[in-house]
Amino acid sequence: MTHKTGTFENFYSVIPAGGIGSRLWPLSRADAPKFLHDLTGSGQTLLRDTWDRLVPLSGPDRIMVVTGRAHRAAVEVQLPELVDTNVVLESEPKESSAAIGLAAAILLNREPDVIIGSFAADHVIRDSRGFRRAVSESIAAARAGYIAAIGITPTEPAVGFGYIRCAGRMAIDGAPNAVSASSFVEKPDLATAESYVASGDYLWNGGMFIARADVLLKQLGESDPALLEGLTELARAWDTPRRGAVVDKVWPGLTKIAIDYTVAEPAATAGRLVVIPGDFDWDDVGDFASIAKLHSGGRKSDLAILGENARVLADASTGVVISQSGRLISLIGVTDIVVVDTPDALLVTTTANAQRVKSVVDALKLSGRNDVL
Amino acid sequence: MTHKTGTFENFYSVIPAGGIGSRLWPLSRADAPKFLHDLTGSGQTLLRDTWDRLVPLSGPDRIMVVTGRAHRAAVEVQLPELVDTNVVLESEPKESSAAIGLAAAILLNREPDVIIGSFAADHVIRDSRGFRRAVSESIAAARAGYIAAIGITPTEPAVGFGYIRCAGRMAIDGAPNAVSASSFVEKPDLATAESYVASGDYLWNGGMFIARADVLLKQLGESDPALLEGLTELARAWDTPRRGAVVDKVWPGLTKIAIDYTVAEPAATAGRLVVIPGDFDWDDVGDFASIAKLHSGGRKSDLAILGENARVLADASTGVVISQSGRLISLIGVTDIVVVDTPDALLVTTTANAQRVKSVVDALKLSGRNDVL
Repeated sequence: MTHKTGTFENFYSVIPAGGIGSRLWPLSRADAPKFLHDLTGSGQTLLRDTWDRLVPLSGPDRIMVVTGRAHRAAVEVQLPELVDTNVVLESEPKESSAAIGLAAAILLNREPDVIIGSFAADHVIRDSRGFRRAVSESIAAARAGYIAAIGITPTEPAVGFGYIRCAGRMAIDGAPNAVSASSFVEKPDLATAESYVASGDYLWNGGMFIARADVLLKQLGESDPALLEGLTELARAWDTPRRGAVVDKVWPGLTKIAIDYTVAEPAATAGRLVVIPGDFDWDDVGDFASIAKLHSGGRKSDLAILGENARVLADASTGVVISQSGRLISLIGVTDIVVVDTPDALLVTTTANAQRVKSVVDALKLSGRNDVL
Repeated sequence: MTHKTGTFENFYSVIPAGGIGSRLWPLSRADAPKFLHDLTGSGQTLLRDTWDRLVPLSGPDRIMVVTGRAHRAAVEVQLPELVDTNVVLESEPKESSAAIGLAAAILLNREPDVIIGSFAADHVIRDSRGFRRAVSESIAAARAGYIAAIGITPTEPAVGFGYIRCAGRMAIDGAPNAVSASSFVEKPDLATAESYVASGDYLWNGGMFIARADVLLKQLGESDPALLEGLTELARAWDTPRRGAVVDKVWPGLTKIAIDYTVAEPAATAGRLVVIPGDFDWDDVGDFASIAKLHSGGRKSDLAILGENARVLADASTGVVISQSGRLISLIGVTDIVVVDTPDALLVTTTANAQRVKSVVDALKLSGRNDVL
């Protein structure tokens, strides 16, 4: 079911490029969200890495990007091949149900048999062959009418990820590794995460969903009929001159909710969701500890340094330094440290405290310090 | 032997204002040495604090400042009362033997009976009454022909200070607490420092020396006749039109050596040095751990914040933050941390590593990074 170019038939990639990445403050900001940064040292942004990973699956003409109006220009700089009709701009952030649901509704109007795969703009996957294998099985499951979620084989008891509890093997043509999902679980504490990993029954929720657009929207409509109605109205007007007026009328009222709650979890409960286990590397680079880990290859003894003009003088220090200011940064005897040096804000913490960075952002919001957010 | 104003007869204060304070990099720099900073939160520089402490002892007209040419303007801004004839400018740094020796030689030419007291420009003493008592006894000992050193009663086994080993009481009029010195010792390791403090025989070397100018110079001449000869030649020309020419000729060739080696130690060996124990607070603010300690009052649970426009958001963090950049600084879960944030250089270390800061400065020097030194 692939074309000669290797792309999958009827398949469309959707990249929701939203989310600031609060745990990566002060690197990630409202005007420089996580997906516009090079966090892997690849020399290009996470968004561009994502694009390059999807082109072989759907072709460059069949990748839709859903992003905020404010990021349009930056996205187009990163993705000059992006076709105009594949740009969906949000007038205000409405979370993933609205973003992915609108893409599905627009594409369904254009192609009744379309299968969409949604892939975050700011995750890291290096093993593109392993990724392709999992997407291929997911598409097969989607063709069979399922909503497929890619689950990642855990390599450690991570507390920063959600998990999917898996049950028995499914018999699906072209998806030999598919398993049924019994439930989705939120980020666990360490002891719980350890029990999950030990049991072998859990996979990380990679946040990658593949389904026929009509199947996905039907599930969404069962969870939130008003949201589906709004998305349908938007999609019907999308490729017409009425788009602007309908967006202004409908978009502000849409429910703000993650797609996990409107699609993935209810589909799992209803037995309509299958999990395709992926044994490729995957990270959502959710915090600075992830970045340190990505760069050190897991070695605790390393100091990862990011930043084009980083000038770092380190003595007996480990962790991660991200330099955006061009200043000389000197570290002496600090271990597992996180130093993020930007022109107007400096963060000093440790990898163990990486998840707490969001609380600083919340405190800054409360105190009205939007200039550094 | 005091005047009605409370100043001591024949007494002249000398402030050698040199030394960058490498362990306080990147706060202290060649063009902004330690004595030009407010490290105590007093609202004024260490130099000005020193001046204010000495005025009651010698009067504002009898305080001589020896400093580098580059610092003349900054010193005069700090000390507008400083009399022109009390400014001694070094054309290049030559350490304390030359600086204090030249002041002694100039003052001796002007007043044969002068007693000088040398007090670093960048030490912290808050108990000015205790300080005055120790200087008073030191002047009495100086009148009796001794070279007096003020030794500080240790409050902890500090490894950042030199120590003076003391022996028996001396019988000196007006100096009831004077003891003889058996030796000077360099900064010890912790075990040695602990044994020093436990023994009760050691005082910290406060670097404060009080003596008749002629006695001090005689001792210096015994250690380094060429240095004394140079200083005498300089002093003879100082208050004449020949000063410039003689400085150009003589200053570059002067021995670069600390006064501890040319005066204090040989005087101790020769039985000419007495120690006046001072039980006032004293700190040479030699490193960032000292600054943290000064500001926390010794409490480990505190985060000291210095900097006029410091904007710090701290969560579960202790240590010291020095902010010169005006940037927002956020700390999360870092303990005993040292963060020094300047416009062109950032230092992150811990109080336990404070003494190692100098090694960074040495590395920067070696790599020619004088722009940040």
